This record gives sequence, structure tokens and C-alpha cells, in this order.
Amino acid sequence: MFPFSPRSVELQKRVSDFMDAHVIPNEPVYFGQQDELADRWDSPPVMEELKARAKAAGLWNLFLPESHLGAGLSNLDYAPLCELMGRSYIGPEVFNCAAPDTGNMEIIERYGSEAHKERWLKPLLDGVIRSAFSMTEPDVASSDATNISLSAVRDGDDYVLNGRKWWTSGAGDNRTTLLIVMAKTNPDAPRHAQHSMILVPKDTPGITLVRSLKVFGYEHTPYGHFEIVYDNVRVPASNVLLGDGRGFEIAQGRLGPGRIHHCMRMIGVAERGLDAMIARARQRVAFGKTLAEQGMVQEAIALSRIEIEQARLLTLHAAHLMDTVGNKAAASAIAQIKVVAPNMAFRVLDRAIQVHGGAGVSQDTGLAGAWTFARAVRLTDGPDEVHLRAVARMELKRDLPAKPW
Amino acid sequence: MFPFSPRSVELQKRVSDFMDAHVIPNEPVYFGQQDELADRWDSPPVMEELKARAKAAGLWNLFLPESHLGAGLSNLDYAPLCELMGRSYIGPEVFNCAAPDTGNMEIIERYGSEAHKERWLKPLLDGVIRSAFSMTEPDVASSDATNISLSAVRDGDDYVLNGRKWWTSGAGDNRTTLLIVMAKTNPDAPRHAQHSMILVPKDTPGITLVRSLKVFGYEHTPYGHFEIVYDNVRVPASNVLLGDGRGFEIAQGRLGPGRIHHCMRMIGVAERGLDAMIARARQRVAFGKTLAEQGMVQEAIALSRIEIEQARLLTLHAAHLMDTVGNKAAASAIAQIKVVAPNMAFRVLDRAIQVHGGAGVSQDTGLAGAWTFARAVRLTDGPDEVHLRAVARMELKRDLPAKPW
Amino acid sequence: MFPFSPRSVELQKRVSDFMDAHVIPNEPVYFGQQDELADRWDSPPVMEELKARAKAAGLWNLFLPESHLGAGLSNLDYAPLCELMGRSYIGPEVFNCAAPDTGNMEIIERYGSEAHKERWLKPLLDGVIRSAFSMTEPDVASSDATNISLSAVRDGDDYVLNGRKWWTSGAGDNRTTLLIVMAKTNPDAPRHAQHSMILVPKDTPGITLVRSLKVFGYEHTPYGHFEIVYDNVRVPASNVLLGDGRGFEIAQGRLGPGRIHHCMRMIGVAERGLDAMIARARQRVAFGKTLAEQGMVQEAIALSRIEIEQARLLTLHAAHLMDTVGNKAAASAIAQIKVVAPNMAFRVLDRAIQVHGGAGVSQDTGLAGAWTFARAVRLTDGPDEVHLRAVARMELKRDLPAKPW
Amino acid sequence: MFPFSPRSVELQKRVSDFMDAHVIPNEPVYFGQQDELADRWDSPPVMEELKARAKAAGLWNLFLPESHLGAGLSNLDYAPLCELMGRSYIGPEVFNCAAPDTGNMEIIERYGSEAHKERWLKPLLDGVIRSAFSMTEPDVASSDATNISLSAVRDGDDYVLNGRKWWTSGAGDNRTTLLIVMAKTNPDAPRHAQHSMILVPKDTPGITLVRSLKVFGYEHTPYGHFEIVYDNVRVPASNVLLGDGRGFEIAQGRLGPGRIHHCMRMIGVAERGLDAMIARARQRVAFGKTLAEQGMVQEAIALSRIEIEQARLLTLHAAHLMDTVGNKAAASAIAQIKVVAPNMAFRVLDRAIQVHGGAGVSQDTGLAGAWTFARAVRLTDGPDEVHLRAVARMELKRDLPAKPW
Repeated sequence: MFPFSPRSVELQKRVSDFMDAHVIPNEPVYFGQQDELADRWDSPPVMEELKARAKAAGLWNLFLPESHLGAGLSNLDYAPLCELMGRSYIGPEVFNCAAPDTGNMEIIERYGSEAHKERWLKPLLDGVIRSAFSMTEPDVASSDATNISLSAVRDGDDYVLNGRKWWTSGAGDNRTTLLIVMAKTNPDAPRHAQHSMILVPKDTPGITLVRSLKVFGYEHTPYGHFEIVYDNVRVPASNVLLGDGRGFEIAQGRLGPGRIHHCMRMIGVAERGLDAMIARARQRVAFGKTLAEQGMVQEAIALSRIEIEQARLLTLHAAHLMDTVGNKAAASAIAQIKVVAPNMAFRVLDRAIQVHGGAGVSQDTGLAGAWTFARAVRLTDGPDEVHLRAVARMELKRDLPAKPW
Repeated sequence: MFPFSPRSVELQKRVSDFMDAHVIPNEPVYFGQQDELADRWDSPPVMEELKARAKAAGLWNLFLPESHLGAGLSNLDYAPLCELMGRSYIGPEVFNCAAPDTGNMEIIERYGSEAHKERWLKPLLDGVIRSAFSMTEPDVASSDATNISLSAVRDGDDYVLNGRKWWTSGAGDNRTTLLIVMAKTNPDAPRHAQHSMILVPKDTPGITLVRSLKVFGYEHTPYGHFEIVYDNVRVPASNVLLGDGRGFEIAQGRLGPGRIHHCMRMIGVAERGLDAMIARARQRVAFGKTLAEQGMVQEAIALSRIEIEQARLLTLHAAHLMDTVGNKAAASAIAQIKVVAPNMAFRVLDRAIQVHGGAGVSQDTGLAGAWTFARAVRLTDGPDEVHLRAVARMELKRDLPAKPW
Repeated sequence: MFPFSPRSVELQKRVSDFMDAHVIPNEPVYFGQQDELADRWDSPPVMEELKARAKAAGLWNLFLPESHLGAGLSNLDYAPLCELMGRSYIGPEVFNCAAPDTGNMEIIERYGSEAHKERWLKPLLDGVIRSAFSMTEPDVASSDATNISLSAVRDGDDYVLNGRKWWTSGAGDNRTTLLIVMAKTNPDAPRHAQHSMILVPKDTPGITLVRSLKVFGYEHTPYGHFEIVYDNVRVPASNVLLGDGRGFEIAQGRLGPGRIHHCMRMIGVAERGLDAMIARARQRVAFGKTLAEQGMVQEAIALSRIEIEQARLLTLHAAHLMDTVGNKAAASAIAQIKVVAPNMAFRVLDRAIQVHGGAGVSQDTGLAGAWTFARAVRLTDGPDEVHLRAVARMELKRDLPAKPW
Repeated sequence: MFPFSPRSVELQKRVSDFMDAHVIPNEPVYFGQQDELADRWDSPPVMEELKARAKAAGLWNLFLPESHLGAGLSNLDYAPLCELMGRSYIGPEVFNCAAPDTGNMEIIERYGSEAHKERWLKPLLDGVIRSAFSMTEPDVASSDATNISLSAVRDGDDYVLNGRKWWTSGAGDNRTTLLIVMAKTNPDAPRHAQHSMILVPKDTPGITLVRSLKVFGYEHTPYGHFEIVYDNVRVPASNVLLGDGRGFEIAQGRLGPGRIHHCMRMIGVAERGLDAMIARARQRVAFGKTLAEQGMVQEAIALSRIEIEQARLLTLHAAHLMDTVGNKAAASAIAQIKVVAPNMAFRVLDRAIQVHGGAGVSQDTGLAGAWTFARAVRLTDGPDEVHLRAVARMELKRDLPAKPW
């Protein structure tokens, strides 16, 4: 029904085959190697092998709509690919399509200078370095982003940063060399022109990775989510993206695609959860019947299918709107899917866990980790409540008769 | 996003305008006239005026895919039109697109003889008679249709029908002259070849309309839902559609489109409920703020928008599958939307009622009637549970690895 | 577990037996007689017979805690009796324990003069007249009761009332002779001292019963819910209850018990719905098994039992608090149960309807009517949202450490 | 309302004070020490200090109804104490009231020989050793306990055990010296007489702790949940509790109290979650208002209060039934609360997490750990579905009229 390009249709088949042939079977290898690492912020060696293989297969940098640097796919075309990669915790990185790098590369591609691109975008696109996005702060409700308070003060040709961030995802990875920092540079400007986005090398003096934040007991190594102190961190003023006070403008452009990519992955992880639920239900016997023959389990399976279908359609719909009417006109659809997708994936995975019993909560499947991750995504980029409020406010502005019924 | 034909796009505009200009404003006229009728099974006169106007505007018989008798629209093309008509209780009839006539016309068009078409289809398409579908029985769980027990015994060139039906919708209407009856003609045949569909004139001796069944206090006059006794009702054997024992074959073909038409209307009624919710929330003040400014009401509005969008996309998806891969391959999608649409409309209307307070449960808006109707649709053509079971069983047949995670 | 008095325990047995022996079997008689009545605002004759029988059995006026006029039962003691009566639509009236009379009698007993008691309370307690409570207005959000605007202006020894009320329940009943009207008598007083409650004979000139409001298609005859215009309605100033400007004080005292009585009845109606669900599930066969053997139906039964138990316990808990610490200290518990009970009954009845299929939505059982009534109770005496807000505000006032975790 | 003994009322005050004065403030000490331990299966030293203090205060072994060895409290009396302890992850152990020791002590007290009591019960009651319960197996659906397959074969005066268990909670603790193992000793006996419970010293040759199972990323050190291989593990036949083939009889007696203790703790943890939610909502500002002033957050608070109250009342009700009519007659109530309590706590904690934003999913509060634990309890001692089925089956056996409505 959706007007996927022939290119996308062909890539869907190839990404799907690659996932089945290389990624899924290498998950145990990856986690096994990880257990053996001396430094948990290192990446298991199999990852680089898989990346090389994906690159060789031309399955690389499939995001980046409207740029000759990417695959030239629309958001709609990319959606089913991103979904397929999302079936595995290690999938997106294999194809160099993992957060937060994708969003960061998009920013630099769109708003960076040639020097920025040469120094940072090129190695990111090559998959030889990684990056982090340092925006949220512990002391303010960051869902209202005008609250961001880390200060960057101009001093000659430099900016000097002071403040504290947290939930800077990916900062832990030993391959990460770049932090993109949202800072208040123009405190006296109007509310939405006070902030700037600054490219900060991770090894700049004054940066301290204070501690690694856990997500329900998971550390998400080697990426991690870090609390970071910036103490007189000095960078050239030329590291500012796009221009002073234009941080919001960039954030706006970044968040839409970033949000929907998470949603696409949520569809993939939910599909895999449903597969696992079905496979288990067919095998396990209780009270003389397979679980598959039991009404409450059938209900769990059917509701999961129904919720996945609806979430996928809404995601594709939002992606198509982004492609055709732009991110701004698609704002309600993006907010809607930001609420729907993680909640849906959470429920589907929850049912899969329930059908698996004790195995479901343990390390024996990926269900437990995916379930906690889906829960966390209900907060990432703003809690459900903020998005519901946004959807309602857009509805309330509609032109309607005084008494429609 | 959906590949609507230019014809459909143009009709969407025209149906929408017609609804706003003629149908919605005439609802009070219709119900006012109804209160004055001597016989509640008569149709308020304004209905024929509206029908004439719609016919003149070329907005007539827009259903009937794949037939030169209809508008030649695909299910996908028809979906948004049916949704728009569904915004009003009286909408579908105005365009000669009301249940159960649409399903009945489709059956006769597809499976009837020339004589059937001349006698019944023509006046139905002209909107001068109406019809009913007599299938469900009070004494058996009709959701398992092989249970249907009304007997039709061959006697010379006739069939003689004996048995009891109920929920024969539309039977009460004084304009109704045709009952399509599902009867057991071949009790010794295999399970799915025992039944036939028979065209039975409503005035045939032996037919008694025992009583009118209410739907939560509503009688849905002038259509009604009737319990009917068939006592030695004699009709020519030539009144059998398609052939002896082929009732299931026909039912299968009828139920898919019939179900999805109900779903399309549910989207429309939910949209109107949301409009009413928003309009009310903007006007009503409590505790010093409009309801529109209050968080719980905003949540109600946002969730309603989100659920409507998803249900509409799933409906369109199912319609498109019916058009492109056929009703059989679309079976899971149809079962899914059959669960989703009435439940969604019910929740949206429920929230609209809550925002309206006492006005919402009363006759002052159409919310109360629409809400009870949406509830009833959760049972029409099979309860949710039967459709969930069907969806689950199709999922359980999928080819999957033994341990997908 | 609950410290019911021996008197209550004995009455529980007797009310239960009386319901089974006399009330339940006479429901069809009642509704049959009702269909034959020339005036639908008359009461079917069997009602007076049942009332006489209950009175003779000493099962009469069991409400009225702390008064020698009633049975001297505490709220806790009365709860299980009220629940039992609530199993039938006609139950409460049989025992002279029906709304709005019970609340009205309590008000007059507590706040009325001897003359009020002689003229109104005595015949109400005898069950020879009925009464209505006229508070809600169509033009304001009455959930915020300070909005009430019907004016009563002092003129010599009289008050002259002008304004419009609606949802005046019981006003239609031909036996109703008294309206208790909430009116604004002191517009210049502080916010909570502007209103008074006035006893107004229904036949006073200037009163017009404009129309009967329906509840989802039901008119609840012979009681009815009326929109009433008060046009220069003149009553003696001595008809004011308790004193000028003390309407709120009275309302406060009335609403607590009134609310919890509705909740008790909701438990009863839910229990009967569960009984019906179970009985049906044991009898009906689909897909080769009784519904009772099917997992989704088992889930429906178990969840219903679980929700009923919890709602009953919370109701008893609130009643016990009212008895022991007073209505004010019980405010949160009353608000909680006001949300829980109708929502619970609604869900249980909804599941029972689903298990009954078409029979469930029709007039063939009491499920359809009870289900719509439970829905309406979510709005009666304030919508859920108002009570949730109240509960939250009381929680937010609790003394807590700054960081409890 | 509930007839707590004066002893219980007094202990409630003392346990509450002790929690506030000693346990809650020492949580950071405990977790800080834990991070420093060389062996994560050791217990942080502060625990023994707290235990000594609780023992000295007479707040020790408060479970054990009907035994002179315990505090002589009924289940009802114990419920609020257990709830209070449950507010902290480390609470129950401080008072020597932690699972699985409490259930194990109850078994030995009730079914053990004098020798068993001398060797195992005494040190358990003294809090100098700990124990584990080894029942669930990875290869069978253990929710149907007749599936248990680990074999114990008689050989002279010994039993020789062979098989594999998992989810043996507490086995990791270096203080644990006793495993109570459910084994199949009589494979040819009737279905419920094939199993025995055997006391097995943890250091018996042939026992291998294969691996520690995680619960959503948490290892619950120092207790742990272990997969254990029993390979020719030889113990004296006198280690069988109660007698050959009586394992089910014991399990039945153990599970009721064990389940309800978990439920009591769930109430406590939910109360603390609500406290945290409220405290946070009062402090955090977004969009110009505290969260406490925002409708969706108010709804979250109110629903949490309402659900906690109902779950607590149902728990107390079940406890009281156990005390007054016995565990068997209380079976439905126990199954009900087993479903209600963890689901309730999960929802309340989920809302608290949502209000906390990123802090809620991290290690900065106990919310994340408690939330995953509540989820796991939906599977412990049987998944929700098994308990719902049990409740339904008991309901379906009730004596009812053929058509109750």
C-alpha cells in the first residue's frame, strides 16, 4: 500500500537476509566476547567484522535522506530497513545506522562547515569513530528544553563551557571522540535563541565522565549513558554549529528523525518478541495442552499482532508526512508515534515474557533487555505526557463548528 | 500516502460538502419528523428528499467494487467516503450506502440470476425498496455459523422454511420487501455445504415478525432488529442464490466487505465524537479553567486522535489488501480491524460523553446513541473473542525458527 | 472480617431471602405491567404490593443511621443490605430505600423543622409520596457547585424562584410531590454561603416539567430525569432548610451517604452480572466447548470476581470510616469509591454482555439497562475526573520527606 | 476496620519507627558496602548490625503464626508489619522475615522432626544461616507442579538425587547452608503423591551452582537465583520432610503464606513509590507549573492511591480468611491477591518512574529495581494466567439459578 521505491523494496530483502545470516547468529558471539573484555567500554571484536561485511554488501549508512552521502532513501523508504535492523540489539551499529550517531551525522551534514565535515562527519560515516549527544541535565526538567542551563561563555576565539549533563548516551564507548553539547551561549536573547550546539572533542581538558547511569540494571555497554561534568572546557568558537543561538533550530531538525528512528526499531523488536512468543507457545505444555491452544495466550498473540500493525502503519504514515509535507507539518504524527511505538513494544514484549515464564525475565533471551529498553524510550526525548499534551494542543487549534453534534 | 484514485479524492470532497450542507443540518428535521410519525416503522419524509438530492448530485451507490452498476470504486477508494457518511446516523442511507442493503446488493449482483437482479437488485439500487439479512438464531451460538439450524426442505419446485431467526436488522422498515435467509437445505452434506441462501419476499405467508429487539434501549427505527418466526414459508426453489449448499461460500464473500464498511463508519463516528469533545472542552469552564486547559481532558483528546489515526490506517490497509490480494488473503487484517474499530470508536465516544457530562448521556447529542451502537458492533458479525482467536490461529501457522530469540 | 453487628448479619439473610422470593421473580411482572400503563409516569401496581410485603416483614427504611426513625444501622451495617437491594432495578424502592428519597429523607430528618418533618418526612418514610432533588443546571458546570445560579429572591415572607434545572431525577413520578431545590439566595455572601436548600411542592404554580431526559435511550420511568423551569415560583421562606446560605453545608452532608449508597448498589448489580455471566458460560457451546472452558471467558470471570471483591472492600472501608471518623475524614475514601464502583460495575456488566452476545444488548436480560446506568453513575454527583482530582489533592497534602526513595 | 490485635497495632508503630530510624537511612550504606565487597555473594556488614539491633528491639521473627517460636501473630496481624518491612529492599532480612527463609522455617516448624529443627530451624530462627527452596525446573512448565522431574532414588538408608533446578533463590548467599529440594521419589504413585521434600545441605558433594540468573539485569546479590545441577547427590533418607510422597501436601501449605507475604511487601513498596511520586511532583517544574498541579500527574497519583487501597484491603481480607477459615477455603482470595498485588505495585511504580523521568530508570532511586521485581513477581509461584484460571474455576462451581437475570 505504501509507495516504497523499488530501491527500498530490494534493500528490505537484502537487509532481512543479512540480519538472518549474519547478525542474529552472531548475537551470542558478541555477548560472549563482551563477557571476556578487560575494559567493558571496548567493543567486542565481532562487531568490526560484521560492520566490514555490511559495508562490503553495500548495506551502509542507509539513513540520511536528501544527501548524496547517504543512500538517498526517503524516511518512508528507510523505515522498513530501520525496523529490520531494530530486531537485534546489535543490528543498527552493524549497518552504521545506530543512535546517536545517525542523528549527529545528520546534524553535521546539514548544519556543519566543511571543516566540521572533514574532521567529524567523514570518520563517522566510515564507522571508525562514534559520537554522543549531550543535552539533558540532571537539575532541570529537560522535557522543556528552554531550561537547559550549561553555560558557554565567549572568551576570545574560544567558548568556555561549565555545567553538568547526564544521559549522554554513547559517551562511554572508547571509540567515541565527539560530544555534541547543547549550551546556553546567549542568556539575554529571546527564549528560543539562547542556546547553541557545540562540537566538543571528548578528550578536551575539563571533561569528566562522572559515572555511568544504568537503565533498570543494564549499563548498555560499550555505549553507556553518562553523567558528565564540564569544568572550564575550552573549545574554538568555530566549533559552534550553524551559528550562535541557533541550537533550538538544530534540535528541532534533529529530534523528528531521531524519534521516528527509535519508533521504527521498536516495531522490529516487537515483531521479534511476537515471534518468540509464538515459538514458545507452540512448544510449551501446561495442563495437558500447548500454550498455543489456550485462550489467554491466543488473546496475547492476537492483541500483539493488532498493536504492531497499527504502530507500523502510524510510523510509516508519519515518515511519509515528513517526506511530503515536512517535519513541521508532521509534528502531530511524530508526537503520536513517539507515544505509540514504545508503549506498544513494551506491551508486546511484556506478553512474550509472560509466555516464557522465568526464562523471559532472565538473560536467556533478549526479551528482558528489550522490554526495559522500550520502557526507557517512553522517557527518551520527552515523556509520553509531553507528547500527549502537544498532540492535544494541535487538535484544540482545529477549526470546528461550535456544536459539531 | 494511500494511493487513492483521483476519482476518490474528488468524491471525498463532494461527499464531505454534501454531509455538511445537507445531512448534518437535517438530522434534527429527521428526528423531529420521526417523533410525529403515526407508525414508527415509517421513514421520516426528509429522508426521501435527501436521497433524491444525493442521487441528483451523483453521490449514489458508491459501494459495489468491480461492477458497472456501482461507482467502480475499489474498497480503498470507497473507505474515506463510507467514513464520511458514517459521521451521521442517517448518512449512509442518504447515499443508498446503508447496511444491510449494501451487502445484500453485492450478493445479488455477484451471485444472483438475471431474474433476481431484475426483481430485487434494480429497486434496491434505485433506493425504492429495502432489504434484510436473516442469519443469526437465538438458540445457537451463531458466531460458529455451522450451527445455523433453520430448515428449508425441498417440496417439488419449492422450498419450505421452518425455524426462528433474530437480529434480522432492517426487517421492521415498512419499505423492506426482501429477506435474505440463511437456511439448512442439505443437512447430510459436509459441514460447510449444508446451508443455502434464499431470497424470501417479506410478505410470504408464514412469516411473523415476533418482536423488535432493542439495542440498549434504542429500537433503531424505522429499521429495527427483529425476531422472526418462519412457519411453513414456501418459496420457489429458484429463489436460492448461486446453488444449493453454497450459502457459506456466499457468506464468506459477504462478510468481509460488510465488516469493513462498519469499520469505516466507526472511524467517521469517532471523528465526529472527537470534534464534539474538542468543541465542548473549549467552551466549558470548571475550577476556573476551560476543560481544554486541563491535563486529563488533554489526555482524552490526544489518546482519541492517536487511536483514530491507527484505526483508520488499519482499515485502509485491510481495504487495500482486499483490493490487491483478495478477501481471503486479507482475512487476518479484516479480523483485526473488526476488533479495533468498534472498540476504538467506543472509547473515543466514551471520552466525549465524559467531557459533556449529563448532556453526553442524554438525547441532546448523538453521542449516547453512537456509543451504544459502537458497543453493539463488538458483537455484530461475531464477538471480539472469535476474531482474536482467528487472528491468533493465523499467526500460529507462521513459519518461524524454533527459538527466534 | 468486617465488624457487622448481629442485627446486620440477620438482616442480610432476610433481605437476601426476600429478594430471591419476592423481588427477582416479580421483575417480569413489573415490566409487563409497565408496558400496559396508560401513563408511563404511573407506578406498576405490583410495586405497592411488594412494598407492603417488605414493610410487613420489617424490611423498611433500613437506611438512616443515627436516627430513631430508621433501623438504627451504621453505614457499615447498611452496606451489604443496600448491595443486595441493588441487585434489582426495582429492589431499592421495594424497601423504601431508593434514591433520591433516602438522601432527601436524611436531609429533612437532620436539618428540617418539626413542620417539615410532619408534612414531608412522615409520608416519605411511609412510602406514600416520593421526592426529587433539583440541583444540577444545564448552563453551568455543576461539578463545581458554586456555579449553581437559579435565584431565589426574598419577597416578604416568601421566596420567589427563577431559573432552570435539569437531571432532576424522580420528578416525573406521579407520586412525587416534593422538590428540594438548591437556589442562590445570598449572591453577595462568600462563595460557600450563597446558596440555600428550599422545599418546594411540585404543584406550585410556575413549575414546568419541560422534558424528560433519557439515559442512553432509557427514560427510567416512572421516575424520570427532568428539565424543569422555575418561573416566579413562590414558596414561604419557612421552607428553607436549616437557614439561609447553608445550602452547601447540607449538600456536603447529603452527598457522602448518597454517593456511597450508589456504590453499594453497584456492587450488587455487578454480582448479579457475574452470576449471569457464569450461568451463560456454563450453558453456551461454541467451537465444540462450553464458553466456561474457554480461556478468554475464564479470564473475564476471574477479573470480574477480583474487581468486585476489591470494590466491595473499599466500599465497606469507606462506610466504616464514615461511621468511625466522620464523613469529612472519610472524604478521600468516598471519592475513591465513587470512581471505583461504577467503573467496576461497568466493566463486569460489559463482560457479561459480551458472553451473552446479542441477548446481552437486548431487553432479554437486565444487563443492557444496568450497564448504561453504571456508565451514567460515572457522571452522577461529579465526573470521575473531579473525584480523581480531589483524591490527588488530599494525597499531595501529606507530610513526606523531601526524597522518600 | 480490620480486627488487628492490640499487639499488632503496637508492633506496627514500632516497626514503622525502626524502618524510618534505622533501615531506610542505612540503604545507601548497604549498597555502598556492597560495591566494595570482594565477593558479591557476601552480605554487606551493616546488615548484621541492623539485624542485631532489630533482635534487641524484639522485632524479630514476627511471622510464624500458631507457633511459640514466632511472635504468635495471626496472618492478619502480621500483614501490616510485613508491608512496612517491604518498603525497603533490605527491610525483610533485617527482621529475619525474608523470603525464602520464612517459608522454609514454617515448613520445618510444621513438618520437620526434632532433629531437623535442632540442626536447621534453630540457626535459621537465630538468623545465623540462610536457606533456599529448590523447586522450579528449566525443562518443564513448573506452574503445573506435577511436572517436577528431578529424581531421588532410594539407596539403602540414603536418597540419591539427580536432576536440574533453576530459580533457586537465595542459593548464592555465602551464608546459605540448606537447600529444600522438591524431588520425585515415587514415580509410580498417584499424580499428587509422587514427590517429596528433602533437606539437602548445600555443601553436599554433587551439587553445582551452574550459573546465576538475572532478573532484568539485576542479580539480587547476595541472594541470587541459581541454576543448580544435582549429580548423584546423596543424603540420608531421614532428611525427607513429613514422609515419602508428601511433597505436595507440604507445598500446598507453604505456598499460601509465601504468596501472601510477597503481596504484603508489594503494598509496602507501592506506598513508597507513591510517596516518591508525590515528593517529586511537588518539586519538579515544567511548563511553568509544578508537576503536582498538572492533571495527568494528579490522575497518576489518585489512581495509585485507589489501587493501593484496594490491594491492601484484599490482602488483609485474604489473610483474615486464612486465619479464620483456613488456607484451603481462602484459596480463591489468595489467588486473587497473587494477581492483584504485583500488578498494582508494578503500575504504581511505573507511574512513579514516569514522574521521575530519567532519574526513575537509573540507580538514583529504588524505583527501577522495585519495578522490575514487581514484574518478576507476576511469574513467581505461577503466572497470572494460572491464578486467573484457578479463580474462574472456583467461580464456575458456584450454585446458581439457570438464568440469574
